[in-house]
Amino acid sequence: MDLNALRTANPDHWSKATAIRALTLDAVAAANSGHSGMPMGMADVATVLFEKHLKFDAADPRWPDRDRFILSAGHGSMLLYSLLHLVGDAQFPIEELKNFRQMGARTAGHPENFLADGVETTTGPLGQGIANSVGFAMAEEILRARYGKKIVDHYTYVIAGDGCLMEGVSQEAITLAGRHKLSKLIVMWDNNNITIDGPVSLSDSTDQIERFRSAQWHVIEADGHNPADIDAALTEARASDLPTMIACKTHIALGHAAQDTSKGHGALTDAEQMAAAKAAYGWTAGPFEIPADVKAAWEAIGKRGADERRAWEERFDSMPRSKRETFNRALNLDAPKKLSATIKAFKKQMSESAPKLATRASSEKTLEVLNPVMTETVGGSADLTGSNNTKTGDLGVFDTDNRAGRYIYWGVREHGMAAAMNGMALHGGIRPYGGTFMCFTDYARPAMRLSALMKIPVVYVMTHDSIGLGEDGPTHQPVEHLAISRATPNTLVFRPADTIETAEAWEIAVTQKSTPSVISLTRQGVPTVRTEHKNNNMVERGAYVLADAEGKRQVILIATGSEVHLAMQAREMLQAEGIGTRVVSMPCMELFAQQDEKYRKRVLPGGAVRVGIEAGVRQGWDQWLFGERGKYGKAAFVGMDRFGASAPAEELFEKFGITAKGIAAAAKGLL
Amino acid sequence: MDLNALRTANPDHWSKATAIRALTLDAVAAANSGHSGMPMGMADVATVLFEKHLKFDAADPRWPDRDRFILSAGHGSMLLYSLLHLVGDAQFPIEELKNFRQMGARTAGHPENFLADGVETTTGPLGQGIANSVGFAMAEEILRARYGKKIVDHYTYVIAGDGCLMEGVSQEAITLAGRHKLSKLIVMWDNNNITIDGPVSLSDSTDQIERFRSAQWHVIEADGHNPADIDAALTEARASDLPTMIACKTHIALGHAAQDTSKGHGALTDAEQMAAAKAAYGWTAGPFEIPADVKAAWEAIGKRGADERRAWEERFDSMPRSKRETFNRALNLDAPKKLSATIKAFKKQMSESAPKLATRASSEKTLEVLNPVMTETVGGSADLTGSNNTKTGDLGVFDTDNRAGRYIYWGVREHGMAAAMNGMALHGGIRPYGGTFMCFTDYARPAMRLSALMKIPVVYVMTHDSIGLGEDGPTHQPVEHLAISRATPNTLVFRPADTIETAEAWEIAVTQKSTPSVISLTRQGVPTVRTEHKNNNMVERGAYVLADAEGKRQVILIATGSEVHLAMQAREMLQAEGIGTRVVSMPCMELFAQQDEKYRKRVLPGGAVRVGIEAGVRQGWDQWLFGERGKYGKAAFVGMDRFGASAPAEELFEKFGITAKGIAAAAKGLL
Repeated sequence: MDLNALRTANPDHWSKATAIRALTLDAVAAANSGHSGMPMGMADVATVLFEKHLKFDAADPRWPDRDRFILSAGHGSMLLYSLLHLVGDAQFPIEELKNFRQMGARTAGHPENFLADGVETTTGPLGQGIANSVGFAMAEEILRARYGKKIVDHYTYVIAGDGCLMEGVSQEAITLAGRHKLSKLIVMWDNNNITIDGPVSLSDSTDQIERFRSAQWHVIEADGHNPADIDAALTEARASDLPTMIACKTHIALGHAAQDTSKGHGALTDAEQMAAAKAAYGWTAGPFEIPADVKAAWEAIGKRGADERRAWEERFDSMPRSKRETFNRALNLDAPKKLSATIKAFKKQMSESAPKLATRASSEKTLEVLNPVMTETVGGSADLTGSNNTKTGDLGVFDTDNRAGRYIYWGVREHGMAAAMNGMALHGGIRPYGGTFMCFTDYARPAMRLSALMKIPVVYVMTHDSIGLGEDGPTHQPVEHLAISRATPNTLVFRPADTIETAEAWEIAVTQKSTPSVISLTRQGVPTVRTEHKNNNMVERGAYVLADAEGKRQVILIATGSEVHLAMQAREMLQAEGIGTRVVSMPCMELFAQQDEKYRKRVLPGGAVRVGIEAGVRQGWDQWLFGERGKYGKAAFVGMDRFGASAPAEELFEKFGITAKGIAAAAKGLL
Repeated sequence: MDLNALRTANPDHWSKATAIRALTLDAVAAANSGHSGMPMGMADVATVLFEKHLKFDAADPRWPDRDRFILSAGHGSMLLYSLLHLVGDAQFPIEELKNFRQMGARTAGHPENFLADGVETTTGPLGQGIANSVGFAMAEEILRARYGKKIVDHYTYVIAGDGCLMEGVSQEAITLAGRHKLSKLIVMWDNNNITIDGPVSLSDSTDQIERFRSAQWHVIEADGHNPADIDAALTEARASDLPTMIACKTHIALGHAAQDTSKGHGALTDAEQMAAAKAAYGWTAGPFEIPADVKAAWEAIGKRGADERRAWEERFDSMPRSKRETFNRALNLDAPKKLSATIKAFKKQMSESAPKLATRASSEKTLEVLNPVMTETVGGSADLTGSNNTKTGDLGVFDTDNRAGRYIYWGVREHGMAAAMNGMALHGGIRPYGGTFMCFTDYARPAMRLSALMKIPVVYVMTHDSIGLGEDGPTHQPVEHLAISRATPNTLVFRPADTIETAEAWEIAVTQKSTPSVISLTRQGVPTVRTEHKNNNMVERGAYVLADAEGKRQVILIATGSEVHLAMQAREMLQAEGIGTRVVSMPCMELFAQQDEKYRKRVLPGGAVRVGIEAGVRQGWDQWLFGERGKYGKAAFVGMDRFGASAPAEELFEKFGITAKGIAAAAKGLL
């Protein structure tokens, strides 16, 4: 590249873009780690975006009607941090950049949404940002339909690299965006031909332009180092009635000795090469120094949206109060006042009628009362609507002709669904839930982990949660998936036993502000075990005594979900033989672990043998069987220690010994 | 559809295809569950494939040079079972079909490779079969390059549905196939416009034809109910020098009242509608009855390949003996004779030189000696070759001009890599291993679970296995991933402490015949802890005493991987205070659990407090801290109970208290 030609053609642009490149080089050198090449390659595109297109106000990075900027290629975090510093975001003084990748800094190795207001989403695991962006854009459409264009009217811009586009989840994302004509979604592809292992051609020969077109996107090609070209492409993209991909031809690590090589992807810390690159840029300022005129120009960009924001605030304030309150309540993730009473009334009715129901059907019944009072929910399923029981009568279907619809047919895209739900939650104003089979937690895993890491209260509705699904066989029968979800920090895993516990689990899940939930639900019918109505939400304690021992307590049976009623039957057998048996229902291990020791010991006192019962693997159970006890007792576990099989459900429970008789025998074997 | 016209145009074809439809209806009705519509829609395509193109011999379904037939749309399992019965596969008498989806039957709800020789792979989780097929086709290329066209020369045929193509992994698969010009891979897309939730248009508007073209595939459109059209397409596909996708326009549940509806996807059991469908087909035979002439015609198809197979056997027998032996050894998953001595010699050398190395580097050193003696290995990485240390000097890179290459640049496609490795292992003759960051286990999860379920010894090389990776931060720092892998049945999870244990772990992993392995490796350097050479493979016992207590044993420290040397340091501190401390290295919990009780108690006797140490979550540890003990003792765990952070590695270990001092303090707190 002839840097001199670039500089002289657009000197003002050049100095602004070069500030990003210089800060990147300096921060990576200071940290002695990081990724220099991507910010250096995409600095021109980002500069034009921020200067001419992105609607934002650096003074209020959380302004609800801002355009969203998603850095899907999260390893290029210095691009984002440089921009936030340059435009004057108060959370990004130069000290933060000097502390790049150090303990406690906002400038983490990859952008973390929970560390700074100006970071929209956590990226780094490739493909996640572009998949989040579909949820961002859908949320914008839904809220625009609801509040009108004067209140909600913004774009979602994404920078994605070759790595993002190679990940399968990107296909799920772009086909969703194409199907729903998310015209306010604009992806800028950093087309630099380089991945870590070498040139892209080493592992890929995809025609990305034709690929996006096949997904019904508008595609524009642009020279990623020509500001006029980039500007024209962005203008055209904003006018399109389809989602737009701008293929930005760029040079990774522009101007550095490592330009156009895979080495350029990583940390460029060689002092001589850095000096040479800065000289080639015509950049004479010292490390972390930005010439005053350049900084002033960037700060003016940071204030570009201030008037627009104030005008928006006036429009917002002129909305009817109830509308404003609902808008803010949803944004703040506050529960509607009616929720608690609604759930209580539902529980009362259900404990009286005591239906035998699959808990997935209990979940649907709960949603039928919950969705009307909690209008920020948006439901969906990955092509299993009838099986996941996620659709209720009032939602309406989100579509090109019904942007106010609150139900999304995600198609066979578990991963794309989960990542888009993350995007919706991050956008704000929406509380998403989505369903698939529990076993396909596997497909959604990368995004489910990010829900937890990002501290967003997405709800995963995972039905068909054990061998109880029967004939579909071991590919569809989860055995390790409760353990997987429980192993993940900051995740609530609910396995309710009946309709009452299901309603209580939902109440907790939809009132979370910073924790995602997995609700594990049965395919098969189970009886109501909570036949006595209680106003208190018992699931909130994580575990509680469902039926106490008569006579001397010799046995404690601890069970979850569809195995609770088996434990109750086993208790009857044992009591009939004079063996005092307590049944503890444990719908949420994480909440039980959070209770004080006194409560935990009241529920699980010493002096009795314990049997854990769950149609899944034992991993995660030993803490309740052996842990926290004043004196040693014996314990056993009734569950699965292998994959399941294809056969009717009742036969499978027999085959694997998960029966009332098996439980009673396990308990007696310990006495 | 005018069934009459179809029937009269090709009466012989029609009766053969209708036999599939009738058997499907009968089996689903008998099971009262299953998926009827797909086999009914694709019966014509499958009939033409088996009659005119597929190279197979029903008498020997494992003939190594057979064409592979992959039913990616695994819910349509009755298509496969019907075909296997009709062609005369001895494992599929009519009784098996009558037992569809029943306990112990080969005819599981979804096809399970381990239940029948004629089932190439386990499908059901959508997208997996088409992604496996890439590995099948690569394995064929590699073995053809090695053994010549006379010994290895076959096609891989795949039937995939809309669901398969919506899953992201399908994009990873088809772009890999396109990049590598896998011309002997032929995908037949069941283009029926229907998914479970309704018409495909509800959730997708992708132009699949342009999408495959953008991935450099040859695409042919065919009428999926016109045998001549299908035949011509398959002929053209076989001649193409690109992978080919045949878009087969079909009607789901052809001829049934539910034709062309999402209801048709499921179990069509209504007796009257079944009778009407059969009448429309002109099918008068009773349930599970096949007219003799139709069965004879199918059995002739089943014998079509017999001569070809015999000719192949003659060619095979005329190969040099050593070549035959190598071929069969690899196919049977037997280890080469030299392996054991090679690993021993390497261990001796390493225990003497006692290097401080990242275990990922130890892994590379091991592979440098292992790959030359074990020529069936094929390595690779998902665009992290230099970080995963998976490439050794002798492998050569698999490419269009080097089909004998044994290293694959998988690109940023963890899921596609894992699924393709499954395909390679299932094909036979190849022992695949592949690397990514431990944290991105998440992306590969659906295929990793299937390695375990399918009982195939794929090796996952997972580096950067803790907060020890440092600055890249929590998106890249696994904390729950060891627990996730350990929760999965039939999976060996190794976390070696140094070069010696790494070599031992590899030796075990590459001698498995029916169990996949996860080898968890550090980014950061760790000292050699096994400085005394032992011929025995100590990792084989799962855990062992690395250093025993001096004086009265008061403390047992149990650690894995990079925390073992911290435990050794803590032991020194404790011993210096007169506290007798044993260190147990536990590189593989699964293997330790398989040891007899006597050995386990010898390693973990009662009477001492225990501290478990691992830079991951506690889940899975309590069994070793509390379980199996003669008398109650106290225990603690030093590890992670939250996500990590972005900072230098040493600071992170300090911050989270995973230090020798922290371990010693935890132990002392229990005394």
